[in-house]
Amino acid sequence: MRKNRLEAFSDGVIAIIITIMVLELKVPHGEDMQTLVPLIPIFLSYVLSFIYLGIYWNNHHHMLHAAQTVTGPVLWANLHLLFWLSLIPFATGWMGENHFAAAPAALYGVVLLMAAIAYWILQQRIIASEGPDSMLKKAVGGDWKGKLSPLLYLAAIPLAFWWQWISLALYVIAALIWLIPDRRIENVLRSAGT
Amino acid sequence: MRKNRLEAFSDGVIAIIITIMVLELKVPHGEDMQTLVPLIPIFLSYVLSFIYLGIYWNNHHHMLHAAQTVTGPVLWANLHLLFWLSLIPFATGWMGENHFAAAPAALYGVVLLMAAIAYWILQQRIIASEGPDSMLKKAVGGDWKGKLSPLLYLAAIPLAFWWQWISLALYVIAALIWLIPDRRIENVLRSAGT
Amino acid sequence: MRKNRLEAFSDGVIAIIITIMVLELKVPHGEDMQTLVPLIPIFLSYVLSFIYLGIYWNNHHHMLHAAQTVTGPVLWANLHLLFWLSLIPFATGWMGENHFAAAPAALYGVVLLMAAIAYWILQQRIIASEGPDSMLKKAVGGDWKGKLSPLLYLAAIPLAFWWQWISLALYVIAALIWLIPDRRIENVLRSAGT
Amino acid sequence: MRKNRLEAFSDGVIAIIITIMVLELKVPHGEDMQTLVPLIPIFLSYVLSFIYLGIYWNNHHHMLHAAQTVTGPVLWANLHLLFWLSLIPFATGWMGENHFAAAPAALYGVVLLMAAIAYWILQQRIIASEGPDSMLKKAVGGDWKGKLSPLLYLAAIPLAFWWQWISLALYVIAALIWLIPDRRIENVLRSAGT
Repeated sequence: MRKNRLEAFSDGVIAIIITIMVLELKVPHGEDMQTLVPLIPIFLSYVLSFIYLGIYWNNHHHMLHAAQTVTGPVLWANLHLLFWLSLIPFATGWMGENHFAAAPAALYGVVLLMAAIAYWILQQRIIASEGPDSMLKKAVGGDWKGKLSPLLYLAAIPLAFWWQWISLALYVIAALIWLIPDRRIENVLRSAGT
Repeated sequence: MRKNRLEAFSDGVIAIIITIMVLELKVPHGEDMQTLVPLIPIFLSYVLSFIYLGIYWNNHHHMLHAAQTVTGPVLWANLHLLFWLSLIPFATGWMGENHFAAAPAALYGVVLLMAAIAYWILQQRIIASEGPDSMLKKAVGGDWKGKLSPLLYLAAIPLAFWWQWISLALYVIAALIWLIPDRRIENVLRSAGT
Repeated sequence: MRKNRLEAFSDGVIAIIITIMVLELKVPHGEDMQTLVPLIPIFLSYVLSFIYLGIYWNNHHHMLHAAQTVTGPVLWANLHLLFWLSLIPFATGWMGENHFAAAPAALYGVVLLMAAIAYWILQQRIIASEGPDSMLKKAVGGDWKGKLSPLLYLAAIPLAFWWQWISLALYVIAALIWLIPDRRIENVLRSAGT
Repeated sequence: MRKNRLEAFSDGVIAIIITIMVLELKVPHGEDMQTLVPLIPIFLSYVLSFIYLGIYWNNHHHMLHAAQTVTGPVLWANLHLLFWLSLIPFATGWMGENHFAAAPAALYGVVLLMAAIAYWILQQRIIASEGPDSMLKKAVGGDWKGKLSPLLYLAAIPLAFWWQWISLALYVIAALIWLIPDRRIENVLRSAGT
């Protein structure tokens, strides 16, 4: 039951974050198609962040599905993750409004990096609370995705000041890596007959 | 259980979309009834979009009620549908503020068309995940509504540049077609004794 | 199960409406206590609307608790109620910003009247779907509150153009009548041993 | 079942409050890192309020977990708590925009004090509804945290006009006291074998 409420609260926060981001896409003054042109970078950064939040929701869904108990530290590690996710609309809006300039592209990477670290901490807290037989631990295994993506963000942050399109390419690549749902967890759950 | 969380997240996103749309109805400066007059087109487009989102919520509710499993592709097809629905407040606001001008009326049709396609993809993903005995497949049957409404939106997009009121009439007609809840699904479920 | 999802969606919409209302309370420029003075009427109208939305949530909660089935017409009657509730932040903001002027005070009454009618329609739809043995029908009984409050709003609308403080007094009186939770429903449920 | 809906509604409201607060962090015009500098106090007050709302969500979660029944007065005491929490984004925004000036720092304390009182009233209402054998009553025990933190807020309000950094230090200290989840409730629940 306590897991349910943690899921419901996280779903609520992620649903709101994903939806208020669209408020950055301000209705233009003017009725021509041309008035939409300046919105294209804002729209593209919205698409990228929508995909990232979808990935987080998806993985969070899988991770908690495999989790068995919810302790105090898990609740706070979850709030810590939601905190960094809540900054995505700000970073997205700043990047979109400035047409992917260097500093906003770097800040976007900082927020993604902090969210990735917060996700990793949450995963560790759940595994720690479950002891050596943790189903989640088996499911996560080597966790190459969870190790590779922070490295990509870490590389993207300084690179943004050199040529920001490399950073953006790295953000898109990291998203593509995650777009494939975490079949490892599904497999372990299936073989456990759940 | 996993279906529950998908429903809860979708409910959350649709509830927020439907409610932030009302933020486009900005409080006017002035205390006379006359200051409300310029808000009439914004109000009317709000009513239309509220009905569309209500239809989507209603049909989504029925579709997932008939679904039995939730796979990775279903999760992503659902997020894809939510993405297009999240653009409805923007399209509504642009259309309302420009008093149903040609380009905004066409864009509104584009968003409705993409949402209809996304809904169809989600339906196909659920049916595919359930195999030949899919209860949803039987329930949907010929699906004339799902086939007719995208055609109406497709016709409305170019027609908006000729005479936008035709497009608007088509959007209203398509909404009326859907307002009747999907009795086919209810009937199949009832005869299956669920 | 279907009732659960209707409740969850309604809870989501009412929770968002109640919270976005606070966005009308804009952060003032200036750091003195005096800069808060112009916000007092906005704050007071926020308090009134918060109480009204609390009453609707509370009564909706009791009504659905007594309901047994959710049919298509019930789903749409519920969306119709949510539509009028979604206009409360607009009416509240207009009334607060214009310091309870005549037209905004009348519009506030119109929105409350329409919400009360929508609530009554929803109640009738649920009773109709349950047949002559409806537990909700017994619980509601004479429903003097449901009959009196629309009359109060109906009186308040024209009176606002004569002296708006009478209208406001009527809104406060109607809220006080409802603040007492619907013990009739609780009593019938309790005697039914639920 | 009724407890579930109360939790779901409270989760929804707290999730929205926590997320709309981030809207005060307005996207700056300008693409340099320097344009973020004026946002630092707004960001810091966002962090503090995020932690406070996290604490309230966490404690609310524990309190309702120990609660057994939900009566009318409990519903209203809960709405009363949500009302004061809904003012946190306003108080946070005002404090952040004015770089922790005296009056905003005092108002922040007023909102925290009212929320603490509302939380205490809710706790008393639940205990009262459960009678002398209330599990929550045993769990809460001496409740030194619940008694100390309102005193800290009460001291911080006048002190803000003398030197506001003392008030802020008191808000941070009160948050730190609460950050440790309420193990008392967990212990009683555990020993009750729930």
